[in-house]
Amino acid sequence: MSLQIIPVKISKDVECGDDLVAMLLKTKDGKKIKNGDILVFTQKIISKQEGQKIDLSKIRPTLLATGIASAYKKDPRIVQLILDETKRIIRMKNGIIISQTHHGLVCANAGIDESNMEQGFATLLPKNADASALKLRRKIKTKTGKNVAVIISDTFGRPFREGQTDVAIGVSGISSVIDYEGKQDSFRRVLRVTAIAIADEICSASELVRGKTLHTPIAIVRNYKFDKKDGKLEDLLRVKSLDLFR
Amino acid sequence: MSLQIIPVKISKDVECGDDLVAMLLKTKDGKKIKNGDILVFTQKIISKQEGQKIDLSKIRPTLLATGIASAYKKDPRIVQLILDETKRIIRMKNGIIISQTHHGLVCANAGIDESNMEQGFATLLPKNADASALKLRRKIKTKTGKNVAVIISDTFGRPFREGQTDVAIGVSGISSVIDYEGKQDSFRRVLRVTAIAIADEICSASELVRGKTLHTPIAIVRNYKFDKKDGKLEDLLRVKSLDLFR
Repeated sequence: MSLQIIPVKISKDVECGDDLVAMLLKTKDGKKIKNGDILVFTQKIISKQEGQKIDLSKIRPTLLATGIASAYKKDPRIVQLILDETKRIIRMKNGIIISQTHHGLVCANAGIDESNMEQGFATLLPKNADASALKLRRKIKTKTGKNVAVIISDTFGRPFREGQTDVAIGVSGISSVIDYEGKQDSFRRVLRVTAIAIADEICSASELVRGKTLHTPIAIVRNYKFDKKDGKLEDLLRVKSLDLFR
Repeated sequence: MSLQIIPVKISKDVECGDDLVAMLLKTKDGKKIKNGDILVFTQKIISKQEGQKIDLSKIRPTLLATGIASAYKKDPRIVQLILDETKRIIRMKNGIIISQTHHGLVCANAGIDESNMEQGFATLLPKNADASALKLRRKIKTKTGKNVAVIISDTFGRPFREGQTDVAIGVSGISSVIDYEGKQDSFRRVLRVTAIAIADEICSASELVRGKTLHTPIAIVRNYKFDKKDGKLEDLLRVKSLDLFR
């Protein structure tokens, strides 16, 4: 059966406390949600809904942030936010800070984003996007009776390859990774591929129907048979000591 | 409109010189190819079709390959193939060699793969997967009159994150990357996201319908509006000096 990826348009700008599930269920395709659908929400609407939209005029940058900002030609308030969100800085260059966030994510500018917002504001990543996904999944179950999975998606750069792709930053109701360890191929040989990051692949697939300038913050992935284990972000984060690429 | 990803099953084991387009066009969905479809082929069938399947009994490992093989508990013939395919070794550990291939790809074991083949054989990556994709695209045009795009996909690991995902190793008839540089968001601010690696996202999306033990080496991606420029692998490879993540 063919996989379907359905874009869900929501033209209203999401604000703190908005009922995202109600907004979803009002849409044409949201009304037709089925058991086994996977709902992919962008980081941006989750952050806005959860109050992770920050008024930059209220940020008082430290001397460190001001110094970095001046050296890298950045807004010191943004640098302050990046430092606050960062566990470990990996690289600073060309106005971009690559860091590992407190969530364990490695990304540019600690995931802080000023796009698709009025001037003077920025969003931080959701504090715990696994919890955000679980909350949405439970609410969808309550309102519709349907068992779905929910993934929160964000657009990150990566080493070695040009261009950004979408990856999962929060997962609920689906395994993050399919483990093929020990499974055999068509010739009864152990597979080279041991684990596929399906949550990341689902986010990348959803990005294709979303674009960046449209009001399409949700996608419905249909006809994908998945393991209903409770995946989480942590399953997708490689421990440094096991990361041969680093 | 929703995006559709259609798996194409081909149960025959592909051999050198096989007519992949004829095999595709014999299938139920292959018969219904439309203008604007994107056809994603796995590396494995392209390598087999192009004679990149290597009989290991014919490989004579050098002293260097034998030494590495003994230290890393690998087959010295496989190590020899990896060294032959490698421009630059990045890391060797736990029986895995991460290297940059002559194509510029950074991956484990230089993309050499022993799965889904009889014992004693391995596939190398296609010599020039952009050319492979172009050839398939032209042949599909000749046989069906349809204008499609073709992408060759392989499953690679990546730094920072667990699990492998599919990425493009060859592209024809579609831009590899969408450039949003200078475009404005809904609030007329310049977008944070500057370029999306759509060819990689399309490969990841296709992996979802394929699985690893099934005979599904081709996927048709339908209803994705794309820029018909001629993308190529090189557009997806980040030059080391510009790679902040490295």
